[in-house]
Amino acid sequence: MLARKIADSTVRRLAIYLRFLEEFEHQGAGTVSSEALAARAGTTSAQVRKDLSFFGSFGKRGLGYDVHALAVQLRTILGLTRRYHVILVGAGRLAGALVQYAEFGARGFDIVAAVDRDPAKIGTRWGDLVIGNVADLEKIVQREQIEIAILVAPADAAQALVDRLVSAGVSAILNFAPVQLHVPHGMDVKNVNLAVELETLSYALQHRGST
Amino acid sequence: MLARKIADSTVRRLAIYLRFLEEFEHQGAGTVSSEALAARAGTTSAQVRKDLSFFGSFGKRGLGYDVHALAVQLRTILGLTRRYHVILVGAGRLAGALVQYAEFGARGFDIVAAVDRDPAKIGTRWGDLVIGNVADLEKIVQREQIEIAILVAPADAAQALVDRLVSAGVSAILNFAPVQLHVPHGMDVKNVNLAVELETLSYALQHRGST
Repeated sequence: MLARKIADSTVRRLAIYLRFLEEFEHQGAGTVSSEALAARAGTTSAQVRKDLSFFGSFGKRGLGYDVHALAVQLRTILGLTRRYHVILVGAGRLAGALVQYAEFGARGFDIVAAVDRDPAKIGTRWGDLVIGNVADLEKIVQREQIEIAILVAPADAAQALVDRLVSAGVSAILNFAPVQLHVPHGMDVKNVNLAVELETLSYALQHRGST
Repeated sequence: MLARKIADSTVRRLAIYLRFLEEFEHQGAGTVSSEALAARAGTTSAQVRKDLSFFGSFGKRGLGYDVHALAVQLRTILGLTRRYHVILVGAGRLAGALVQYAEFGARGFDIVAAVDRDPAKIGTRWGDLVIGNVADLEKIVQREQIEIAILVAPADAAQALVDRLVSAGVSAILNFAPVQLHVPHGMDVKNVNLAVELETLSYALQHRGST
């Protein structure tokens, strides 16, 4: 119950700490300070200690955190001790880029299916992946035991696709379509809007003169 | 000074409110309640009121916010009353997807240049855009009056490219390379890590059983 109330921003920081811990591990470091983690993650050491203490992990004063033990703990918290089957709903250019995104596989997210409504795309291949017909969405979700869908479909098609994904038993959706999706309670949706990311920069540029 | 201290998460919510305000405006709505904005943005009405009061905008009790006036105000706050020249550093598949991302242009972000180090890509076209040689990065930044760079280069090349972008006078970077960039004070960097987005979902799936 507690765990579900943790803010999205905290979970994102945990994921970032894990990346640096793995890098430190790779370099042979046995321990790491909250200051070093903070510097790499662009936050404060107080925030690092707060984030980690929330999960019951405490560094030793003067010694810091055990790199390996903390990495194991974060992987467990983040649900990264197993693999997930992922479907790409939409097979446009962004989907084509995501298929090649090596970090997904490295983190346990296997893109095992892709579908589109365009007859010119259906049946074509991206490496081992054959693009399926969106008409077969439910069948593919069940056959491939899909848990996570990445929605890279046009805005006008998004909600209907989500309704079908929910019915088919998909548990979580990463949504790139620029619309607010309506989903039943208990379904997890994460929206990615790349224009919003650019707007955090235009905001910063706009207010630079005032500092 | 105040404005620079606003959390990134607040700026992101403002950008999302703006999207819905524009949609309401398009539908001919004159006013909107904080509850309606909250429902669309997936937050609480208290949060909406807090976010907007921070910028001196107050709804009228029983009437809500003036849709048009609030949209104008948010565009001003977010720095969206003018256009920005953007360069894509790296011309791989993700860059190819971003070039086609219509919302960038709609929001005032014009991708006016792209560069790569691959001789097979240099000189080829994406629509009107001719892919340039990364060796000419500084020249292109100056000629095209670039303010924002989108870094979609391999991790091992990222820091050296950022150092060159900083020297060439770029003010802000949207970084897709999975590395922590080191930049001088006053330079704005926003990191996008799509695997981290998926990890917020695996976290949710992992903790679903415990609710």
